[in-house]
Amino acid sequence: MARRTTLQLAVLQPGDPTSLTRQLSDALRRAILVGQLRPNTRLPSTRALAGELGVSRNTVLDAYAQLASEGYFSARTGSGTFVTTSLPEHSLDRLDAAARRPPARGIAPPALSTRGAAMAAAPLSVSDGRIRAFSPGIPALEQGNLDMWNRTRSWHQRHTTVELLNYNDPAGHRALREAIAAYVGPMRGVVCTAEQVIVTAGTQQALDLAVRMLVDPGESAWLEDPGYPGARAVLAAAGVTIVPAPVDEDGMCVQEAQRRAPRARLAYVSPSHQYPLGYTMSVTRRLQLLEWAEASHAWILEDDYDSEFRYGGRPLPALQALDRTGRVLYLGTFSKVLFPSLRIGYVIVPATLTPVFRNASSVAWHGANAIDQAALADFIRDGHFERHIRRMRRRYQERRAWLVDLIHDRLRDDLTLAGSTAGLHVTACFVRRRDDVEVSRRGAAEGLTLPPLSQYYIQNPRLAGLVLGYGHLGHDAIRAGVDTLAAILRDVTLRRSTRR
Amino acid sequence: MARRTTLQLAVLQPGDPTSLTRQLSDALRRAILVGQLRPNTRLPSTRALAGELGVSRNTVLDAYAQLASEGYFSARTGSGTFVTTSLPEHSLDRLDAAARRPPARGIAPPALSTRGAAMAAAPLSVSDGRIRAFSPGIPALEQGNLDMWNRTRSWHQRHTTVELLNYNDPAGHRALREAIAAYVGPMRGVVCTAEQVIVTAGTQQALDLAVRMLVDPGESAWLEDPGYPGARAVLAAAGVTIVPAPVDEDGMCVQEAQRRAPRARLAYVSPSHQYPLGYTMSVTRRLQLLEWAEASHAWILEDDYDSEFRYGGRPLPALQALDRTGRVLYLGTFSKVLFPSLRIGYVIVPATLTPVFRNASSVAWHGANAIDQAALADFIRDGHFERHIRRMRRRYQERRAWLVDLIHDRLRDDLTLAGSTAGLHVTACFVRRRDDVEVSRRGAAEGLTLPPLSQYYIQNPRLAGLVLGYGHLGHDAIRAGVDTLAAILRDVTLRRSTRR
Repeated sequence: MARRTTLQLAVLQPGDPTSLTRQLSDALRRAILVGQLRPNTRLPSTRALAGELGVSRNTVLDAYAQLASEGYFSARTGSGTFVTTSLPEHSLDRLDAAARRPPARGIAPPALSTRGAAMAAAPLSVSDGRIRAFSPGIPALEQGNLDMWNRTRSWHQRHTTVELLNYNDPAGHRALREAIAAYVGPMRGVVCTAEQVIVTAGTQQALDLAVRMLVDPGESAWLEDPGYPGARAVLAAAGVTIVPAPVDEDGMCVQEAQRRAPRARLAYVSPSHQYPLGYTMSVTRRLQLLEWAEASHAWILEDDYDSEFRYGGRPLPALQALDRTGRVLYLGTFSKVLFPSLRIGYVIVPATLTPVFRNASSVAWHGANAIDQAALADFIRDGHFERHIRRMRRRYQERRAWLVDLIHDRLRDDLTLAGSTAGLHVTACFVRRRDDVEVSRRGAAEGLTLPPLSQYYIQNPRLAGLVLGYGHLGHDAIRAGVDTLAAILRDVTLRRSTRR
Repeated sequence: MARRTTLQLAVLQPGDPTSLTRQLSDALRRAILVGQLRPNTRLPSTRALAGELGVSRNTVLDAYAQLASEGYFSARTGSGTFVTTSLPEHSLDRLDAAARRPPARGIAPPALSTRGAAMAAAPLSVSDGRIRAFSPGIPALEQGNLDMWNRTRSWHQRHTTVELLNYNDPAGHRALREAIAAYVGPMRGVVCTAEQVIVTAGTQQALDLAVRMLVDPGESAWLEDPGYPGARAVLAAAGVTIVPAPVDEDGMCVQEAQRRAPRARLAYVSPSHQYPLGYTMSVTRRLQLLEWAEASHAWILEDDYDSEFRYGGRPLPALQALDRTGRVLYLGTFSKVLFPSLRIGYVIVPATLTPVFRNASSVAWHGANAIDQAALADFIRDGHFERHIRRMRRRYQERRAWLVDLIHDRLRDDLTLAGSTAGLHVTACFVRRRDDVEVSRRGAAEGLTLPPLSQYYIQNPRLAGLVLGYGHLGHDAIRAGVDTLAAILRDVTLRRSTRR
């Protein structure tokens, strides 16, 4: 026997017919899901409900049709529209009861896994996207810079193919893998086939994948000290024992790392532009590192995050180019050469690891947006990428010179610069003893991002200072930032002296 | 003292001036990197080299300028261009020696980690993007279907902002998280705030992240048997002990799973449309599962991969809607409702896990392409998404009816269909005893993708049959596929009989 009911629906908000239809179908669906509208209930006629709600009859007809197509309503010829009976009633009563239970309070949630707790404990690095002096590692994003990329990407959006819309190779779109292989060869001396290029969602994901594939919990890995916090977070999350390897002007001190943990399974290095100090790893150290990895069957993660931007100094081929035994995984990213939110990078793996990483990619995420990848392949192949790099290199070189000159003019007694002339940041060490965390805190209050150098250290910080990104800043912003920084440094020194 | 050299460069391929410049600068850079061009070597004059190579002088001038800007060349007024001296010479000799060593052969590479070996051993699921009958889980991708999406996405490409191009919140773009929260509420009864929505690169990555966060190696998890191979691969890669939980018409048999592993840490279920059998989990089972998770402090992963497409039958609210104690993580994806290569999905986590998953996302990959996310947020908010779903639902319903009718007409003695009328695939069980792996192999030879049902089982397969996707196939392709399938089934039966 059919039930009858008076519908108690929330008042609809005014809006266009589409919006009204949606509001009504949402309200009806919800009424069924929470048990307010029971199976076999006869609904009001569309005319009656339209009158009651003060909407057009078409709105109600459309909402009824929508719910019929979803299986919530069924029409019986001659007798009207009913809530479907296929929802068993005694179950619904139990659903009602379950839905009526108050939300539990004070019940402790289940625990995280050990590795989950490690991932949750990593220092969170979140940007709100806003441009501030002197956030490190952000390229120039101003209007017009990416016009050619936008054009290329838009073209591909309008010319997608079924193949590109479908699931794709989790290791990456073939054309992009070929374009990357062709690019890193002459540019960095990296020798590889397209198969060895595994496309990732950027360096962070490449690190996460590589560390999981290569190191087990409880095993050790060398990490530059000071070093890249993203790599440190990944190693900690993977349960790996981090062995700090000191860094000097020649890069990672390999012999010291060997003394500390000769049987480490992996070394993470940024040889072309050590992060954050900016030094280039010497040839001697490169060869020492390779010899160690060969002899002890260890892996090397070579993070080459910004070597496109080098304004002089010692150019050296990638570690990967010197690797004769398949120990080196080479990480590159488009975050710096194009823009960060593209979320595309790559890891070039030894040939022996190619099938393994392809498989792992299919388990871990199933690959990047294929339209982005196809557009990027064309962008590289057509020469736009190299032109973009050349243009940006000139701009960064100017911005760097401007910042370095300002620091030299105004802050020479306070700051001394480390590292080679490359990349998107300078590392400024304090000349006099100062608390860089306090300077950073003061900077934040003034709208400046001033990452303290001491926080890049794993063990006792040997240097205090600031990591100053300039790639994304125009001359005025750099000058204003230096003004503020000068005032902060003066003030922090003064307050310190006053306290003594 | 400066050296002189005769440059031995590869012959340049004909091409436009840009291409020639690039070829030349690549060749020169490589010559330096491999030690063929030594520090302090004086280069030929641009005029001489241009003549020698048969290219314009501007080409050579541009290549020299390029290498100067990269720091490989330096110009000395009045005496020409030289290879930079800042590359220390004794190191270069060692580089030479290293580069001259023959590539090592026969040296075993270092080992993978235990988890790496598990990831490498997962069955690889790779698509070449081509459309075939009857690959499961592929939506309609034909020309015109995604016009409105393409328009929305292109608009966003032309109107990017600095904030969108920069690094973003690894948990997802705020507007998209809000749009998803507003969508799943009325549609699925899922109750959540925008903060609880974590944007992922699709279901596969959401699974990988969730399992790592919630289960440690050696702990147990329930998995539907037969079940989704992607979930199985993730659990295996995470070192989790997989407990097969049998499936019947009411979904996962919770009591049997409890008998097998009462202290499991996690259960993976697809309650609205069990994959691959297609059943809807009953209310009784849903409540049993929630009660178990509450009592034993376990987690539930609810994979709701295609519930947008339901053509009748029993609509039930999501498990998440009945969860009062924060046990359920709800997984959704845009791979089926829009297209797979977009690579965007989401996991809606209990409020207690929100900060934890945000942190984990920043470690594991740092989020999805922000322009895609902003476009998708608008697409949902402006109602295009629901219109798209409605249109596709009608199309899939027709395609399903067409396939089901053909099977009924032609293959009723061979195939019987399981599951509810929903989704993008039907599961066809063999009526007579047949080897589904052999049928699948024969299908592959005829250009058909026919995943054998037996291979979705973890333990002994209880059913043999085929998982037949139809969402991406027009009526002609479905008819042709059924013709071929009928011939294969006839043939496999005949050959079997012959052999006996």
